[in-house]
Amino acid sequence: MSTDHLSSTFAALADPTRRAILARLSTGEATVTQLCEPFEMSMPAISKHLKVLERAGLVARSRDAQWRPCRLEAAPLKDVAEWVDAYRRVWEQRFDRLDAYLRTLQTEERKKHGRKQRKR
Amino acid sequence: MSTDHLSSTFAALADPTRRAILARLSTGEATVTQLCEPFEMSMPAISKHLKVLERAGLVARSRDAQWRPCRLEAAPLKDVAEWVDAYRRVWEQRFDRLDAYLRTLQTEERKKHGRKQRKR
Repeated sequence: MSTDHLSSTFAALADPTRRAILARLSTGEATVTQLCEPFEMSMPAISKHLKVLERAGLVARSRDAQWRPCRLEAAPLKDVAEWVDAYRRVWEQRFDRLDAYLRTLQTEERKKHGRKQRKR
Repeated sequence: MSTDHLSSTFAALADPTRRAILARLSTGEATVTQLCEPFEMSMPAISKHLKVLERAGLVARSRDAQWRPCRLEAAPLKDVAEWVDAYRRVWEQRFDRLDAYLRTLQTEERKKHGRKQRKR
């Protein structure tokens, strides 16, 4: 497993529970106990997921407070957005081409229909 | 390892070689031999990476041509863009807050500097 920054972000995001934890933290800080509530998972299982998110820099935990609340760190997500944005033109072109193709089909359909109507 | 759609996309993206393959394919179709050229990797190693990308639906290979060129499939990347876009407001808020904080520091700095100048 590669350890570059973007790779560890993507690896951390490759799990639905971890993505659900991030979604929960996007609404505000939470303790591990609070994070466990919506999931049918043990505290150690959630802690393991949190460690992966922490190592990827997606979650930070307060050092001062005894209950050490977790908070979302959005900077790695911004890197993901910037990375994927470079491909935007690819899928936009694909959809443009599909759109153009569908319009051609529609025009042909109309022409055929027109001919049929004239024949009647 | 979870097998949901978004998880397998993120898992496939968690490797710099696989991301480099996608970058190459974003410029046009390529055969496995052509994909091997820029990497100091064996054909089996590249083929293994390609299989991961194919399983995630990020790469498709033509069935007709004998050399079976690979092409980028952008739809899963669009899903990644949509997923990460939900967090845009989080990092924008963070940067807004940082910006406001830096402006406060600047104002305080100016006030201090003003007081010093008046004292001279």
